[in-house]
Amino acid sequence: MATVAVQSFVSAPLRIPKIAQFKIGICQLKVTTEKSANILNARNLIQAAAEQGASLILLPEMWNCPYSTNLFAKFAEDFSDIDSAPSLLMLSEVASSLGVTIIGGSIPEKDAGQLYNSCPVFGPNGELKAKHRKIHLFDMGKPFPGEVQFKESDNISAGEKPTVVDTDFGRIGIGICHDIRFPELAMTYSARGAHLICYPGAFNMSTGATLWELEQRTRAVDNQLYVASCSPSRDSAGSYMIWGHSTVVGPMGEIIATTGHEEAVLIAEIDYAAIQWTRESLPLESQKHDDIYQFVDLLRESPNS
Amino acid sequence: MATVAVQSFVSAPLRIPKIAQFKIGICQLKVTTEKSANILNARNLIQAAAEQGASLILLPEMWNCPYSTNLFAKFAEDFSDIDSAPSLLMLSEVASSLGVTIIGGSIPEKDAGQLYNSCPVFGPNGELKAKHRKIHLFDMGKPFPGEVQFKESDNISAGEKPTVVDTDFGRIGIGICHDIRFPELAMTYSARGAHLICYPGAFNMSTGATLWELEQRTRAVDNQLYVASCSPSRDSAGSYMIWGHSTVVGPMGEIIATTGHEEAVLIAEIDYAAIQWTRESLPLESQKHDDIYQFVDLLRESPNS
Repeated sequence: MATVAVQSFVSAPLRIPKIAQFKIGICQLKVTTEKSANILNARNLIQAAAEQGASLILLPEMWNCPYSTNLFAKFAEDFSDIDSAPSLLMLSEVASSLGVTIIGGSIPEKDAGQLYNSCPVFGPNGELKAKHRKIHLFDMGKPFPGEVQFKESDNISAGEKPTVVDTDFGRIGIGICHDIRFPELAMTYSARGAHLICYPGAFNMSTGATLWELEQRTRAVDNQLYVASCSPSRDSAGSYMIWGHSTVVGPMGEIIATTGHEEAVLIAEIDYAAIQWTRESLPLESQKHDDIYQFVDLLRESPNS
Repeated sequence: MATVAVQSFVSAPLRIPKIAQFKIGICQLKVTTEKSANILNARNLIQAAAEQGASLILLPEMWNCPYSTNLFAKFAEDFSDIDSAPSLLMLSEVASSLGVTIIGGSIPEKDAGQLYNSCPVFGPNGELKAKHRKIHLFDMGKPFPGEVQFKESDNISAGEKPTVVDTDFGRIGIGICHDIRFPELAMTYSARGAHLICYPGAFNMSTGATLWELEQRTRAVDNQLYVASCSPSRDSAGSYMIWGHSTVVGPMGEIIATTGHEEAVLIAEIDYAAIQWTRESLPLESQKHDDIYQFVDLLRESPNS
């Protein structure tokens, strides 16, 4: 037991951004062992999404690199040197040439001898607006019989902070794959005023079938906001079989759009007015009992951050 | 912004009780406007559950009284005077005569001029072991077109604390209906070492279809414990149409047993070893980042409470 002093903030007020109705494009990319092919393919599908009217585009976890821990170092890029980072450079170029905002899934990031599983965010001028490093690494404990042991932290270092980014399309919180298993991260984003949480992720066949949709719907319902996920497509020949099923969920837990396990561009209409009327209809936030429990966001800097 | 000093506890260690494998009986009762008929019917279904081997028995929300706010006062009982409380007296009698533990759903409670929506817990000696007063009352905000306004707090006062009760069948946390919408309550119970959370509830047709199963599976998965729910059966003639579908969910979110909307006795096998191997397989608790967020249980008294 310890007594700790914490700053307690109320939730940031919901501000509806100027552009509250728009199309999101989810690129469920096929990932190969050829980095250059992955980059070209991603560019093509981003363009296809933009051509279908998407102005906010989401990519999957580890889209430039197969999900094999021994390949992360080889495929990693330095986020502080974009001109030498082919994946990031493409995202910057395509964001500005199409005038779209890109939540860039994740790629391996190298920084000071460490590797991270990191999501870059590019604005429509091509600038790197934010970066989220996966906080909760997927470390299995004792595997079930027949299950393959997997410990992401053997190769990857953990991010140390939540990431919200203000875009033309609202305030967006980012979580990568296993980050979705922690209600605390979604609560953090909700309290900071997020409209949408984007989860690039690559769930496997077992947790994919049982938990992928459940977790997305739950985070949306419990926090009364939008959730969008983007998985790589399934590669039946790969060593790590991916579930796929990228999805967009509305603030009442309704599935707005979803897809199977093949490569796909998924387009969904988002309207943040739905957040407002969902919260007006059932004001969960004001029904919480802060005399009984409190959730503390230790790194929040101010009531409006 | 305020700076508050809080006591920070780690989660209570999981203790597997002596009886870790047992059958739970869920009595999805039909509720009528006749209190005496409701009591007799409940007794019969409790007995039926016990005859099928259930040693822990769960009843629905408001099982002695239709869910009509104008009836609550008439049907209410005083928990401090069981000899004058027919519903409680029956539960005490049947618990001791059958030697079962009963999580008694809820009935209207009267205390000092207030009404509560309260769950009584009876041990196998017939003693009232605990009482949970519904904390989160179902107060709708602005109804959707066609929706009926509903404000439970017009008639009912809110409970002021979480309830965990140590039984022969483990440590049990209790939430009533709308309590399930708040992840914080389930997190409280999990941190206090609960094996099972029981949610008596009477979701309506709309949130029943969309959220009832989702919320139960989520609370189980996010906290890696068992969840059991018990609804009244549907009464197509009633003014408040109830979803039904009482369910038992395991710590990986798997549905162990469920039913439709008719009156039913549902029997499910519980084995707390599943909690242990779920947590060993994926130790979510130790993967939380208490340098980023903390959940504070303000009323917890000690690391073991």
